[in-house]
Amino acid sequence: MSKSRVLSGMRPTGRLHLGHLFGALDNWRLLQEAYECFFFVADWHALTTEYAETKGIRENIREMVLDMLATGIDPSKAPLFLQSRLHEHAELYLLLSMITPVPWLERNPTYKEQQQELTTKDLSTYGFLGYPVLMASDILLYKAEYVPVGIDQVPHLELTREIARRFNHLYSEVFVIPEALLTEFPKVPGTDGRKMSKSYGNAVYLTDSSEQVTAKIRPMVTDPARVRRSDPGNPDVCPVFDLHKIFTPKVERDTIIDPGCRTAGIGCLDCKGVLLQHMLPILRPIYDRRQELATRPEIAQEVLEDGYSKAKKVASETLSEVKAAMGM
Amino acid sequence: MSKSRVLSGMRPTGRLHLGHLFGALDNWRLLQEAYECFFFVADWHALTTEYAETKGIRENIREMVLDMLATGIDPSKAPLFLQSRLHEHAELYLLLSMITPVPWLERNPTYKEQQQELTTKDLSTYGFLGYPVLMASDILLYKAEYVPVGIDQVPHLELTREIARRFNHLYSEVFVIPEALLTEFPKVPGTDGRKMSKSYGNAVYLTDSSEQVTAKIRPMVTDPARVRRSDPGNPDVCPVFDLHKIFTPKVERDTIIDPGCRTAGIGCLDCKGVLLQHMLPILRPIYDRRQELATRPEIAQEVLEDGYSKAKKVASETLSEVKAAMGM
Ligand code: SF4
Ligand code: SF4
Repeated sequence: MSKSRVLSGMRPTGRLHLGHLFGALDNWRLLQEAYECFFFVADWHALTTEYAETKGIRENIREMVLDMLATGIDPSKAPLFLQSRLHEHAELYLLLSMITPVPWLERNPTYKEQQQELTTKDLSTYGFLGYPVLMASDILLYKAEYVPVGIDQVPHLELTREIARRFNHLYSEVFVIPEALLTEFPKVPGTDGRKMSKSYGNAVYLTDSSEQVTAKIRPMVTDPARVRRSDPGNPDVCPVFDLHKIFTPKVERDTIIDPGCRTAGIGCLDCKGVLLQHMLPILRPIYDRRQELATRPEIAQEVLEDGYSKAKKVASETLSEVKAAMGM
Repeated sequence: MSKSRVLSGMRPTGRLHLGHLFGALDNWRLLQEAYECFFFVADWHALTTEYAETKGIRENIREMVLDMLATGIDPSKAPLFLQSRLHEHAELYLLLSMITPVPWLERNPTYKEQQQELTTKDLSTYGFLGYPVLMASDILLYKAEYVPVGIDQVPHLELTREIARRFNHLYSEVFVIPEALLTEFPKVPGTDGRKMSKSYGNAVYLTDSSEQVTAKIRPMVTDPARVRRSDPGNPDVCPVFDLHKIFTPKVERDTIIDPGCRTAGIGCLDCKGVLLQHMLPILRPIYDRRQELATRPEIAQEVLEDGYSKAKKVASETLSEVKAAMGM
């Protein structure tokens, strides 16, 4: 029996941080064992918001692939390819454009949301509006049966499903209707308590040494109401505790809540010390592999080339079926 | 000194009629002598409105190419290629999507107009909205200096120019800003007086024999106010006279106006007889060449393949420049 197929992609944002590790890669590492996975670097997707800042993209891609390999993504199990190397993605995007109603795209909740959030960028572009069409072409091209998504991305995947159904209905049953592989991703706060993000300058990178990680965690924001050592704290509103949830085993974590934090039985610095005790041994092997990979960065290109060949086979076959179904 | 480059395309609507001949091909025949022309069959464009009816498209393309050759389009002078054979058009469409503001597209006068006109079709699609982006990619890929357009298409070309300027400004000066080669196309009425169109069933085709042309012109609608032979007519509102403007030399045409039509000096049947005297000798050689070409239809494929090779060279070079400029 052949394994079910999974597709997942990530935008090339440069060096990866804990947000990427626990928001995707850690999951990819597990998925590649159980499914036939195709992973890709979504450089065309990056353009939907970063079209005005493309200069470092090639460098970003290389750094990112090395980071991915360091976390245990294994290209011998799951091809890792670069989206823009396969013109099939662009062709299918064009063809699916023709059958996708604009109102479906305008209804997309993240469309107006992101436009409002990222006010420093002009996101009224045609490509930004059509981002779900490009996503649909990525997924449908590989006839993926499952796509790992968080709850907030379910509406996007629903759009892919609607587009696929519409195509199958208009022409013939070419596409597999993908299912959501609903995944609960942990909250990954940055050192200032906001969501971890390169642009906030609050990120812990996979390329940070144990010393650098320690230097970032030490001054990290905690429960803001806990001003003095003697004040009791509330782990529920403490970003440090969100990291404990990722790194610290439950039994030990529970003692931090109570009698630790809630009764002022433990100070925040000690609490961070406990966190680092668990965090560093997990991040260290990734860092070491990453250092080793940095000595042969050409491996990134090799991995992508190999992934390209494997992806090309599937993508070009599907595109041929699409064209035949449309009579083109 | 090298010739300036011109690009022009036509949607594959199947057998061509006089509307295509005088609305485009007659002009292409002249252009190919004075410019370095690239002509193409815009099959992807056809999808913007015909996505639900794609079954006959391959056959349509072949018939159309044979018709084009019959009118004197000479592939040894101007490559004739099929848009969908060049994935570069799709890739550039995707890349230009990212920098094209949606409001530019919504402002496009034909967008809402056509949506209102073609009410039997659902034209609220993303691809229909983005039709000018695809057109821009067609033109810019060949660095065309001129694009032959009627006055009503000038706003479309202005959009291409704006997109090109925006790209050049954001990245670097890759694109030539194309100029309109403003062309006055004659009005070509169908036999019922409306615009000649396959869908109205009022067209005279290039594949019609002299007998068929005669049989279509004889019962053609004239000045509707001229009911009896003795009623004076008004050539200004007579579709037959619009055809005279295309086929009948001015001196003879003037005598038809006055003392002919306006004083009831000539009957409509005789007037049509004069028209046919001029029309048939012009259409006959096209028909004959077309009959001859029908005996070797494989020539259509050969022409498109040859055009593909020539177009590919230019298109792939431009796309490489585009990617380099964007740092991809
Ligand atoms: S003791 Fe730990 S959980 Fe409590 S506020 Fe301080 S850092 Fe946060
Ligand atoms: S005489 Fe000729 S121009 Fe006048 S109404 Fe008849 S067909 Fe038209």
